[in-house]
Amino acid sequence: MPTIPTQPYKGTRDFYPDELLKRNYIFETWRTTLITNGFNEYDASLLENAEMYIAKSGEELGAKQLYHFVDKGDRSVALRPEMTPTLARMVANKYGDLRFPLRWFSIPNCFRYEQPQKGRTREFWQLNVDIIGSPAGGADLEILTLTGKMFIDFGADKSMFKIMFNHRILLDNWLDKFSLTEHKTLIYAVLDDWHKLTIEQNRHKLSNSLSTDQIQSLVDLCTKTGESWSSYLSMAESFPELQLILNSLSQIMPEVEYEFSPTIIRGIAYYTGLVFEGFNKNPVSPRAMFGAGRYDNLLDLFGKPTTPAVGFGVGDVTWHDFLTEWNLWPNFSTIVREKVGIMALSVESLTTIFTETVPALTTTNITYDIDYNYQRSENKRYETLKKRGCTQILKV
Amino acid sequence: MPTIPTQPYKGTRDFYPDELLKRNYIFETWRTTLITNGFNEYDASLLENAEMYIAKSGEELGAKQLYHFVDKGDRSVALRPEMTPTLARMVANKYGDLRFPLRWFSIPNCFRYEQPQKGRTREFWQLNVDIIGSPAGGADLEILTLTGKMFIDFGADKSMFKIMFNHRILLDNWLDKFSLTEHKTLIYAVLDDWHKLTIEQNRHKLSNSLSTDQIQSLVDLCTKTGESWSSYLSMAESFPELQLILNSLSQIMPEVEYEFSPTIIRGIAYYTGLVFEGFNKNPVSPRAMFGAGRYDNLLDLFGKPTTPAVGFGVGDVTWHDFLTEWNLWPNFSTIVREKVGIMALSVESLTTIFTETVPALTTTNITYDIDYNYQRSENKRYETLKKRGCTQILKV
Repeated sequence: MPTIPTQPYKGTRDFYPDELLKRNYIFETWRTTLITNGFNEYDASLLENAEMYIAKSGEELGAKQLYHFVDKGDRSVALRPEMTPTLARMVANKYGDLRFPLRWFSIPNCFRYEQPQKGRTREFWQLNVDIIGSPAGGADLEILTLTGKMFIDFGADKSMFKIMFNHRILLDNWLDKFSLTEHKTLIYAVLDDWHKLTIEQNRHKLSNSLSTDQIQSLVDLCTKTGESWSSYLSMAESFPELQLILNSLSQIMPEVEYEFSPTIIRGIAYYTGLVFEGFNKNPVSPRAMFGAGRYDNLLDLFGKPTTPAVGFGVGDVTWHDFLTEWNLWPNFSTIVREKVGIMALSVESLTTIFTETVPALTTTNITYDIDYNYQRSENKRYETLKKRGCTQILKV
Repeated sequence: MPTIPTQPYKGTRDFYPDELLKRNYIFETWRTTLITNGFNEYDASLLENAEMYIAKSGEELGAKQLYHFVDKGDRSVALRPEMTPTLARMVANKYGDLRFPLRWFSIPNCFRYEQPQKGRTREFWQLNVDIIGSPAGGADLEILTLTGKMFIDFGADKSMFKIMFNHRILLDNWLDKFSLTEHKTLIYAVLDDWHKLTIEQNRHKLSNSLSTDQIQSLVDLCTKTGESWSSYLSMAESFPELQLILNSLSQIMPEVEYEFSPTIIRGIAYYTGLVFEGFNKNPVSPRAMFGAGRYDNLLDLFGKPTTPAVGFGVGDVTWHDFLTEWNLWPNFSTIVREKVGIMALSVESLTTIFTETVPALTTTNITYDIDYNYQRSENKRYETLKKRGCTQILKV
C-alpha cells in the first residue's frame, strides 16, 4: 500500500501548537472585546442547505466559489462560504422569540473554493459582529466605536490603522443635488476604486459619460476640496443618521482616527446606509482590511419583516497579518508559563511513587513522565512547587 | 420565489447564545484542565484528503458514514469523521522537527453521516487528548490521572462517575494461562458487552465454543470472584506496565474512583495495551461515556517508525448530557454579568451626546443604544458606573 501524503488539503492550514496559540489569542481577544461590550456569541453548523446560497443567484459565491455536494439522503448541502445567511436564517427561525435589538457575534470557519494566494485560503475564520433590530443612529455609532476598540484591545494605535466611513443615502442625496443621479452606477464603481488609481485615470473613466464640470465636482469631492466637498459636509451635518456620529465619535474614542470619506462605497449593492472600513496604514502596502455597513434587508430571503441591521466581518488571516506587520503579538512564552500548573501530587504521593519498587521503570523515567511541566531549571521547578504549597521538596 | 426553510441542516444544531454559553463553558473548562497540565492545543482543517479514511477500508467509517465529495479540482475530499488520522498526519508531516513526547489536545468538529438520534448528531465536537512518543508506564498513569481531573474540574464527584481500566496484554496473558487463547475473538466480544447482558445470557453466548469449566473461569473473572480473578490480580501486580498505576493511582487521585476491571475491552482491534473508559453512574441509565487507551501503531499509515501513543476522545453531546443529568452547570447569568463592562464613555462625552441637538433621535433612544449594558435596575447601573471611576452619574 502506498503511504498517504502528509500535507493538508490544498488551501487549508495545519495549526501546530505554536500557530494555534496565535489563532487562539486573536479569537480570545475578539471574544473579550465583544463580551465586555455586551455582545452574545452564537454559532451554527458548517453545513447548510445549499439553496440558501444558490438563491442569491448571479453572485460569484452562488456558483464558482461554493463548496457544495449532494448527501447520501439526496439533500443539496453546502459548506458555508460566509456567516450572514446563517445569521439571517437563525434570526428568522426564532423571530417571534427573540428580544431585539440583538447584539450578536460569531467566529465561524468558512470555505470558499478559490485559488490559494497570500492572504486568501480556502478555509478561513471570520469574526462576524452585528446589531440587529436597531435603526440607524445609536447602533451605527456603537458599531463604529466597537470597531475602534477592537483594534485598541490588541495594542494598536492611531499610527497603525484608521476607520473610514461614509453614508450611501447621503451620497445619493449629493448626487441628486449635483444632478448626477442618472450616472449613479458608474460613479459608485469609480469611487469604490478611487484610491487605487491616479486622478487622471479616474477622470478618464468618467470622461465618456460626464461633462468636464461634473467630473471636476467628483474630483473635488474625492480630494475634499472646494464647493463639492463643503456641500457634502454641510449636508452630512444636517443628516439625522450621521449627526450623532459626526458630533460624538471623536469625543468617545479620541484614541482612534475616524475619517469621514466620500470614497468609501464597499461595492455596488447590499448596504443601505452607513458604510465603513478598517484600514491598515502599513507604509509599504496601505490597504482596507474589511468592509462593513448597514443592511436593512437581512431577512428578506426568509419572508420576514424588514429588519434593520448593521455589522462587520473580518478574517483571521487579515488580522494575523496586521498583528505581524505591526509587531503586536504578545510574548506567548510568558502567557503559557503562567497557565501551566502541576498535577495534584502531594509530597507523600510523590515519595510513594519514587520509592515503590517498580522493576521496569527507572526513577528517571517516572520523574520525567509525572513531573512533565518541569522541562525547566531546577530552581524554577522548586519555586513553583513551593508556591503550590509543598513544604518539602523531593530531590530526584 | 418560495422562501427558504429556516431549520438547520438535518442532524446539526444551531447554537443560539444561551446554548453556546454552555458549549463554550465545556470547551473552556477542558482547555483550562489540559493547559494547566502541560498540554498544547493543535487544530487542522475540517477538510482532508478522503483517501486517508478510505485507506482504513473495511471499517464502517471508511464507507457508509463518511461525508466525501469530489472538489472542482478533481480531488477526493472528506469532512473529517474523527481527529486521530489528522493527528497522525500532522505528526508524520513534521516527524523530524517535533520534540517527543508530545502532549497535545484539540477540540475539532467532526461529521458523520448517520441517523440523528438522542446523543448522536451528524456534526459533533470531540475533545481529543494524546501523549505521543512516551512508552507505557508513566504516560498511562498520567492520562488516567488527567481523565479523573477533567471530571473533577467540572465539579463532579465519586458519586457521579468512575474511571474503569484494563490492559489488553494482561488479558491475553491470562487467556494464555487459562488455555483460552484460541477463543480470543469470541471472548473479547463477549467481555466487551458483558454488563449489557445477564450472566446467563453471557454463558449462553460462550456455550457453543467453551467447556463448562472454561465458561465458569470467565464468569468468575468478570464477577471478580474465585481463583480466576485472584490470578488476574496477581498477574497484574507483577506486570510492569500496570504496577505504577495500581500502586499509585489511588494515592494521587483519592477523590476519583478508579476501577480495575477485566470487562473493559473497547472493541476488538486498535488498542495495544491500556484500555479505559469514563463511566456515568447515572442511576437511571448508567453507561460508558467514552473509551480510550494505548495505540502504538498511530503512524503506520504514513510510513513512519512505530510511535507509542495513549489518548482519549470525548464528545460534546456526551459531556453536555453528563453535566445536565448531574446538575453541574454553573450559573451563567453570574458569569456573564461579571464579564459585561461599559463602553469607554466619560461623563463629559455622555453629557455632550445627550445635550447635542439631534432632531431625529430622542434622548431615550440614545440612552438605550449607548448604554446598552444596562437592561437592569437603575441602582445596579449607577453602582457599576461608579466602580468604573465615574464620579458624577448623569441621570437620563
